Amino acid sequence: MGSTASGRTFGDRIAEAVEARQSQIVLGLDPDPAHLWPGSHDAAPAGGPPAERAALAVAAHCVAVIDAVGPAVVAIKPQLACFERLGAPGRMALGVAVDAAHDAGLLVLADGKRGDIDVSATAYAQSLVGSTPTPFGEVQGLGADAITASPYMGVDTIRSLLQLARPAGAGVFVLVRTSNPGAADVEDLRLADGGALWERVARLVADVGSEGVGARGLSDVGAVVGATAPEHVARMRELMPDAVFLLPGVGAQGGRVEDLAPAWLPGPAAGLVTASRSIVQASERGAGGRAQDAARTEAERLRKVAWALA
Amino acid sequence: MGSTASGRTFGDRIAEAVEARQSQIVLGLDPDPAHLWPGSHDAAPAGGPPAERAALAVAAHCVAVIDAVGPAVVAIKPQLACFERLGAPGRMALGVAVDAAHDAGLLVLADGKRGDIDVSATAYAQSLVGSTPTPFGEVQGLGADAITASPYMGVDTIRSLLQLARPAGAGVFVLVRTSNPGAADVEDLRLADGGALWERVARLVADVGSEGVGARGLSDVGAVVGATAPEHVARMRELMPDAVFLLPGVGAQGGRVEDLAPAWLPGPAAGLVTASRSIVQASERGAGGRAQDAARTEAERLRKVAWALA
Repeated sequence: MGSTASGRTFGDRIAEAVEARQSQIVLGLDPDPAHLWPGSHDAAPAGGPPAERAALAVAAHCVAVIDAVGPAVVAIKPQLACFERLGAPGRMALGVAVDAAHDAGLLVLADGKRGDIDVSATAYAQSLVGSTPTPFGEVQGLGADAITASPYMGVDTIRSLLQLARPAGAGVFVLVRTSNPGAADVEDLRLADGGALWERVARLVADVGSEGVGARGLSDVGAVVGATAPEHVARMRELMPDAVFLLPGVGAQGGRVEDLAPAWLPGPAAGLVTASRSIVQASERGAGGRAQDAARTEAERLRKVAWALA
Repeated sequence: MGSTASGRTFGDRIAEAVEARQSQIVLGLDPDPAHLWPGSHDAAPAGGPPAERAALAVAAHCVAVIDAVGPAVVAIKPQLACFERLGAPGRMALGVAVDAAHDAGLLVLADGKRGDIDVSATAYAQSLVGSTPTPFGEVQGLGADAITASPYMGVDTIRSLLQLARPAGAGVFVLVRTSNPGAADVEDLRLADGGALWERVARLVADVGSEGVGARGLSDVGAVVGATAPEHVARMRELMPDAVFLLPGVGAQGGRVEDLAPAWLPGPAAGLVTASRSIVQASERGAGGRAQDAARTEAERLRKVAWALA
């Protein structure tokens, strides 16, 4: 579990990984059991309970996708909901995907958008980037290298996550301005003392992250910044000079890598482009050919576009 | 799984349950494997992996707590993080707690504070209050009767949860103004067009909830309203006339049931008081005696105080 620790900060770890792999692409994994790559079902023996069979197929699918796409990406971003809906077997499938990613030299960004009061935030950190002391021995968590978090409940919830993440060399990506249509409802609200709510949250992220800037100039507190609102990216960079931006919304949601250049002002690892369906379903979305080949081609295309901008 | 459906809305279901049990108390379950009731460890056979042993002990603890306290409460509120940190065995322990609660006639409010874009929110709803179609058969979710959700990403994320929750007769409790110190950082921010952010969120909750008001006058969209800021409760009620309030922060966090009267203006089920440590750890927190007896006495005390106010 966990390729973390060894004394380096998350910012240094991601900077080194991006440079070594010349990639800023993050492979989103949100497997739908009804929509897996051909051959994944062969991993599910006939006759077992549906959850176990589906989870085995999901695990096989994730391993195949990581195999095909791994060389073009720097990390995976499993969407925890997609695994949780398969119950306990789903958690095992998630562990398989995480191990496959680590074996392929990739980092793992666990996408759960957690946020809770101190003791509960600690339990989430134990679950995802740490471990839990019990009278029966230490229970290892998922071994992720970073997690996503919601800022609604305030900075203490982020600090509680960091208290375990930081010593483990893991990072926390805080939702700042997301890529969904509803982002306008709350994130874009104008504040009485000026600016939008997301700008205030960006300042909070910069503040809590200033204590976790590594030797390479990047903080262990990053920001989720939707690629569907590229007009905000320059302002985000101004407000969060040391934060790594996790940029969802490219491809299926309409964002374009070409619009995200300000993300990379601090260096090539300062912007991570996540893509899920546009890579994994590239074949059926128009590229045709084998799922593996189409996915790898699309990931490699994205890698080159982003790398040229950085 | 799930005592949901049968055509009734969550608002009607909670109204009936509160009246039948004469209780508005919700038992929070946030089990720490290092801090379980005496005897729980007997359920963990020697020699297994730590996660399995800890999960079996946690399950035994939860069943014992539900046994002791069940008669005084209307629902349990498992904190998902505390189970997730034990991996796949933790998910099984959570299922045991949910089944024990349903067997005892209690509702289950799954406390995960989820919030994500459409497809991911759907996956969370499948996981917690619905089921997931797979080529291997339908995979049943946790069978919870309601879930907690974060509003940061906007109304579409809440609507996506409701799309599955509502037909199942399940509810969604949206974070409005929470009980932690950091709540001031974001939730209390003043908006340019007047009021605090939490007031705007309250309006959004009322709006999305207006489509789910049952025959008993309560909506299936509730609000998490920290009992540590009782000065806001009357204003909350004004803004969300049909919402069931989930009121954490009583006891360990300093809130007092006596201060929450405006919550119950629409009826006895319109305010649910959650208490975790103050009930489960009542013995060691000063009451003394057997853990079971002290917990039941404290839960019964809270029940009477709240019922007298409603």
